[in-house]
Amino acid sequence: MIKLSMHDAEDLCTQVLAKSGYSTAHIAAISDVLMQAQIDNCQSHGLYRLLNCVTSMQKATVSADATPEIEHISQAILKVNAHNAMVPLTLQSCIPLLAEKAKDQGIALLAINNCVHTTALWYEIELLTQQGLVGIACTSNHAWVVPEGGNRPLFGTNPMAFGWPRPNNQAPFIFDFSTTAMARGDIELHRKEGKLLPDGCGVDADGTPSNDPATILTTGAMKTFGSHKGSALAAMIELLAGPLIGDVLSMESQKKDAGAGGSPLGGEFILAISPEVLLGGAMQAYLENAEQLFDGYAIQHVRLPSSRRYAARAKNLESGSIEMHASVYQDLMAYLQSE
Amino acid sequence: MIKLSMHDAEDLCTQVLAKSGYSTAHIAAISDVLMQAQIDNCQSHGLYRLLNCVTSMQKATVSADATPEIEHISQAILKVNAHNAMVPLTLQSCIPLLAEKAKDQGIALLAINNCVHTTALWYEIELLTQQGLVGIACTSNHAWVVPEGGNRPLFGTNPMAFGWPRPNNQAPFIFDFSTTAMARGDIELHRKEGKLLPDGCGVDADGTPSNDPATILTTGAMKTFGSHKGSALAAMIELLAGPLIGDVLSMESQKKDAGAGGSPLGGEFILAISPEVLLGGAMQAYLENAEQLFDGYAIQHVRLPSSRRYAARAKNLESGSIEMHASVYQDLMAYLQSE
Repeated sequence: MIKLSMHDAEDLCTQVLAKSGYSTAHIAAISDVLMQAQIDNCQSHGLYRLLNCVTSMQKATVSADATPEIEHISQAILKVNAHNAMVPLTLQSCIPLLAEKAKDQGIALLAINNCVHTTALWYEIELLTQQGLVGIACTSNHAWVVPEGGNRPLFGTNPMAFGWPRPNNQAPFIFDFSTTAMARGDIELHRKEGKLLPDGCGVDADGTPSNDPATILTTGAMKTFGSHKGSALAAMIELLAGPLIGDVLSMESQKKDAGAGGSPLGGEFILAISPEVLLGGAMQAYLENAEQLFDGYAIQHVRLPSSRRYAARAKNLESGSIEMHASVYQDLMAYLQSE
Repeated sequence: MIKLSMHDAEDLCTQVLAKSGYSTAHIAAISDVLMQAQIDNCQSHGLYRLLNCVTSMQKATVSADATPEIEHISQAILKVNAHNAMVPLTLQSCIPLLAEKAKDQGIALLAINNCVHTTALWYEIELLTQQGLVGIACTSNHAWVVPEGGNRPLFGTNPMAFGWPRPNNQAPFIFDFSTTAMARGDIELHRKEGKLLPDGCGVDADGTPSNDPATILTTGAMKTFGSHKGSALAAMIELLAGPLIGDVLSMESQKKDAGAGGSPLGGEFILAISPEVLLGGAMQAYLENAEQLFDGYAIQHVRLPSSRRYAARAKNLESGSIEMHASVYQDLMAYLQSE
């Protein structure tokens, strides 16, 4: 691992994205999202993703400079066409508008079309909890995952995130997970290292359970977490972030890519709910009441989701620096020094 | 198993609920929900639940005749106080109002307080899909389930259901599952039969995995499905169906019951989304597009969730009769013949 000052890390983001051709507005937005992940020590969702940003631009699957096109469908729905751009600029422009609608009507939906989901979902969820809102977000990607009991990929890795604002300046309760049994990146890592996978990660082309990462990533398919229940959730996410909002299923996103290997292009579904509208003057009391749930974790020494991220954030913000894999840093420097 | 005509089964519902003291309006609503489950051959959620209705009334934990009190919070939110009654009457009165709001604003929330959730969640979800709406519902109950890695019950069995309307008069895509590894009723059945459970169903008081149903149901706790991801979902449901809508956590519902053994009293969260508002004239095309997902199940011979229910429904509606466990029928007849 190497250590970089915040300033140098931000500079690195800017330089890589600028060389790659992204517009100033997109550079600022993408950098912010990736820096947040890096500060939280999410190595797989931080500056490492700059490499995807470069590749997607080289393969011409992503827009360098599209402006999000916003349509107010109703008092509770915002629909945004990201025009094939990375999603952060859309989030920066539209999450405040979503929050406004949620604070007005109590519930609101942001439907994003034709976006590349650059990184983790907790970024947008945290923008909502900062406004005192509850958030739920999900997105699909490429069809890599088999429905429980099947043998062909049908679902994306279909992550889902949820956030709950906690009173008294505590960090929000946030979880953000993919609906797969193991992250695709981790399966790839096993393949690189020539290691077999634990049971339950995927199947071969016949639908037989497989422990071989290469089989699962090529002729076979990944499995969802939680058997038929996880599989059902993955299907729900396909529908919410796809056809419901006028966007593609993971199998369609893959067809559109046509083997180019670009980042998956599709929809994102983001829901915001206002405890204040629902509860009025009783809000504070109910938020305090909800703390009993989190106290329940603490009493039995169970870590809350995101607590490792928050600890890393506190440490990195104090030191004014982030840590990243030396190999990722070298790859990024090599790109900057290339023709 | 014994066979009853629809008419006799409905009569049985009416007689049991009437003898138990429920008002005419509640009898009609509860009977409809339980008959639907029985027609779909859901033995654990059909007429079997009449026994709970009787017990809850005997223990005076449920209201016999409360009228749902409806509050229009905003153009997208309906809040209803069920006043400690069984939920079916609230559903019958309020799902049409929820659908109206969803068709107007594109998204709407029905927050139900102080209700007893009598049976499965797919009933209300199907009322929404019948109106061409997408639905999501969840509810919590008593704290019987441990957060992943812990040793004390904190969550309810926290079911969640999702529904998607399919074009061309096809039955909707609906799933409805508890967030536990095994249904509580099935664990009870193992205890009765003196059988050990498979791995992963629960823990003892130290948090050590246990296969003993008695331990799990008394000093230990049930486990969620899907490890820490299922555990996170269970926490989300606690918050959505509890404090967010001004209602209790599962641990509070249990305290309120104070060992009376009544049905859990709490909140229900029901979301409705209108594909028509989101998609306008393109709706039909996107609904057709979504069919590729279900075709993907069919190609690999994977059964869609609810397909067994739909098959049972078709068979029972054709024969004009339902089947139920003889022992349940005998218990209900014994109650009717008692003083």
